[in-house]
Amino acid sequence: MKEKGLLIVLSGPSGVGKGTVRQAVFSRPDAKFEYSISMTTRKPREGERDGVDYFFKSKEEFEQLIKEGKLLEYAEYVGNYYGTPVDYVKETLESGRDVFLEIEVQGAKQVREKIPEGLFIFLMPPSLDELESRIVGRGTESVDLIHNRMEAARKEIELMSLYDYVVENDNVDFAVDRINAIVQAEHCRSERVAYKYIKMLEVD
Amino acid sequence: MKEKGLLIVLSGPSGVGKGTVRQAVFSRPDAKFEYSISMTTRKPREGERDGVDYFFKSKEEFEQLIKEGKLLEYAEYVGNYYGTPVDYVKETLESGRDVFLEIEVQGAKQVREKIPEGLFIFLMPPSLDELESRIVGRGTESVDLIHNRMEAARKEIELMSLYDYVVENDNVDFAVDRINAIVQAEHCRSERVAYKYIKMLEVD
Repeated sequence: MKEKGLLIVLSGPSGVGKGTVRQAVFSRPDAKFEYSISMTTRKPREGERDGVDYFFKSKEEFEQLIKEGKLLEYAEYVGNYYGTPVDYVKETLESGRDVFLEIEVQGAKQVREKIPEGLFIFLMPPSLDELESRIVGRGTESVDLIHNRMEAARKEIELMSLYDYVVENDNVDFAVDRINAIVQAEHCRSERVAYKYIKMLEVD
Repeated sequence: MKEKGLLIVLSGPSGVGKGTVRQAVFSRPDAKFEYSISMTTRKPREGERDGVDYFFKSKEEFEQLIKEGKLLEYAEYVGNYYGTPVDYVKETLESGRDVFLEIEVQGAKQVREKIPEGLFIFLMPPSLDELESRIVGRGTESVDLIHNRMEAARKEIELMSLYDYVVENDNVDFAVDRINAIVQAEHCRSERVAYKYIKMLEVD
């Protein structure tokens, strides 16, 4: 019996720094998970590359994939679609490797319904003021959009209790340490490893 | 509202190396827990000091403490009592600090009944052969006693599923890393920290 990989879902309010933390997770030399690249219909930001940061698709292409059931989750957010291709995730988990998803809160809720045994991590800003200044600091959004995002963030934070873990993003390195600890701990959970030891008692 | 400390219970079969791992946990410069020293009626081994490794008590003294309800757990094991003084544990948890217990399997079961929200970690030998060679290698036990201990160990391993986590003691440093990761992860569990963030939404 082979141990299935762990699905790690990192989510949290818009502006909290999910993308930055995800990049830092994967830049560690001991990073052991596979990153599932999301699909989106939003325009690439400066420096973002297709097939690396996201798969950038047209609205029509995205809606076709929804129809074909090719998305583990998807959400419309501030006028754009975001989603996770399902085949890659399932195949990787079956092969025993951990998969890391960085997705929006609406999408995380859908994944929880489909893969309840996943590991759901909510990335939290140290304060709402801090969150607002990050959204403003990004400099890409209008004042109205900032207001909308803050309202959305408050609602998203209220969904925190649906997650297994809450990681504060007070500092990117600390946040990555916490995420790595959570994954390592989860691999030691007794319901996950019991079968190995039951086998050991039978053999010896 | 103050966050209560976490009770960390390290247990596992006799001979697995609980004492060595516990010492290594506390020798790390960043160790943040309080160690609850056990009480025992067994004779000190070479180098063991009263009030440091154990509180060494006579059988009569120990039975008096049982009567007075002064033990969180106790067990008789190969003719000796082992136990945990209750007051120190409860006061330390209330003050917000984590307490680390290293105890026998019988005792861990009693603690689970009294403090179910504790964090129960089962230390596992890499194999039963390895466990036997460790017990033999200690050189303090007779052949009959080794046989008894191995039988007891097999029964103890069957209780593994009562624990939250299983940590393999293939290497002491790796085992300590895993234990530290488990404790760090547990401090991020959403049911443990939700109250902080609910407060944040109310204030801002």
